[in-house]
Amino acid sequence: MEGRLVKGQIGVIGGAECSPEIYEIAREVGREIARNGFALVCGGLSGVMEGACRGAQEAGGITIGLLPTSNKGDANPYCDLVIPTGIGHARNILVVHASDALVAVDGEAGTLSEIAIALKIGKPIVGIKSWELEGRVPQAERGGEAVAKLMEMLA
Amino acid sequence: MEGRLVKGQIGVIGGAECSPEIYEIAREVGREIARNGFALVCGGLSGVMEGACRGAQEAGGITIGLLPTSNKGDANPYCDLVIPTGIGHARNILVVHASDALVAVDGEAGTLSEIAIALKIGKPIVGIKSWELEGRVPQAERGGEAVAKLMEMLA
Amino acid sequence: MEGRLVKGQIGVIGGAECSPEIYEIAREVGREIARNGFALVCGGLSGVMEGACRGAQEAGGITIGLLPTSNKGDANPYCDLVIPTGIGHARNILVVHASDALVAVDGEAGTLSEIAIALKIGKPIVGIKSWELEGRVPQAERGGEAVAKLMEMLA
Amino acid sequence: MEGRLVKGQIGVIGGAECSPEIYEIAREVGREIARNGFALVCGGLSGVMEGACRGAQEAGGITIGLLPTSNKGDANPYCDLVIPTGIGHARNILVVHASDALVAVDGEAGTLSEIAIALKIGKPIVGIKSWELEGRVPQAERGGEAVAKLMEMLA
Repeated sequence: MEGRLVKGQIGVIGGAECSPEIYEIAREVGREIARNGFALVCGGLSGVMEGACRGAQEAGGITIGLLPTSNKGDANPYCDLVIPTGIGHARNILVVHASDALVAVDGEAGTLSEIAIALKIGKPIVGIKSWELEGRVPQAERGGEAVAKLMEMLA
Repeated sequence: MEGRLVKGQIGVIGGAECSPEIYEIAREVGREIARNGFALVCGGLSGVMEGACRGAQEAGGITIGLLPTSNKGDANPYCDLVIPTGIGHARNILVVHASDALVAVDGEAGTLSEIAIALKIGKPIVGIKSWELEGRVPQAERGGEAVAKLMEMLA
Repeated sequence: MEGRLVKGQIGVIGGAECSPEIYEIAREVGREIARNGFALVCGGLSGVMEGACRGAQEAGGITIGLLPTSNKGDANPYCDLVIPTGIGHARNILVVHASDALVAVDGEAGTLSEIAIALKIGKPIVGIKSWELEGRVPQAERGGEAVAKLMEMLA
Repeated sequence: MEGRLVKGQIGVIGGAECSPEIYEIAREVGREIARNGFALVCGGLSGVMEGACRGAQEAGGITIGLLPTSNKGDANPYCDLVIPTGIGHARNILVVHASDALVAVDGEAGTLSEIAIALKIGKPIVGIKSWELEGRVPQAERGGEAVAKLMEMLA
């Protein structure tokens, strides 16, 4: 999908709670996604999702939040477009389907469920300080490196 | 949600097959949604959904397609952003949740399922040549009138 | 599916709130489904769903409730098996997919969404004091008649 | 849920393809679940899911398959009750919600997504030759041991 507005859609996954350091990493990931001309897809909540949306908006990108609830008011303030799915944890699957490729930043079990689905259906994914799964998830140190790796994988 | 890019999101629902007359009505609905500053949400397929997306793009709007399949290639060519949900007919519920208000254009049983959910959860909805349900769904003659009515309901 | 335990699965749809008269009709529907050797599928909540489960259990049948929430404690006490889907209104679609045929008893907009999906995918359906949709949904007066009609449709 | 028919519902997760050795382990897990008075919940397909259903039926239990497709004909022949969800990989979340506790047998990325959701929402889970996740998933050698561990966790 080389579209009119964006070249495609990159997902950023990670926890709704995170340290300031992780938040800044997510923000850089968001900025890099926008600079490469992609829309940012995420779960729409706080923490890593918010950091990524904020960074993408700072770089002039478009952000989409796929919420677990049916209430768009639950979205972080940096979501341009909100899909309040109302399907709870099942929205994790939709985040993966809606992404051409993904960056996992940190994250616990919820993030692991999304990484697993990405591996299951063959979506390119890179992690930063995230689950490595015995080499199945290539890791990067920073946002710029992670997004550059994804761009290579998508090329 | 008075956002950075759009004032909110309006859904357009209707059949994946329709007459040229209905297609043009959907196109006008799409144009009016964009002119009012709203993003257009739809099921991402052909027919009424395509007409509406095309009209919205013509008027400089943003269009989002929530597909039943997990393959973004199934989207009509006028979708700027695609959410390939992979959840089949259950995506009909998501189209309603993702819309602040909806316009139903023509449509058969699938459209009826979306109108019913809109009534269930209290989302404003106007129909054009669509299901009236004994007065529960106010009707309009054309796209301009339908969107104007929705704008009043949302005000 | 002519299975080991049951001949198949019949869905009963209707409101979570209903009059005592409607509750008794649902109960008779449940009894008739069980007497015919079918498991009863429903949305697992109160009202028509509870009446139907209760009747099915009284006639020695098996009952399955597909809840909108992820909390099995929300099921009515006459559900033998509970699927707490956690997907909200989208579970309505699953009730239809899980039923070989359906009986709609009374019901408002939520029930209408299920009737619409049944029509969309061609599942046999009979109504009792429910939405007629200009003849698209054949009606019966009582539970015995409704289930007998469905058995003919499935034969 | 100490119900009329069963004491509760135990999920078995694992791949749709597996070795004969793993199939037999799944079968023993199914038998033990039934012997303990629980219904067996699974994804309804072949491999580990089929082995578990077969074992449960051999021990007189009840089996429920939650299919990713909307076609009940896709279920393995040992499912007593079939819920053809039509929601694709999102049905993995429903398998977890529908289980009071789970046994993971072997399994690749799809199974990992279910383990992750179980950890996320705090459902007891034991693995056999499955993902250990650095000690987060206690392991057992055989079906009897795994189900005994779950029974302790649920007590």
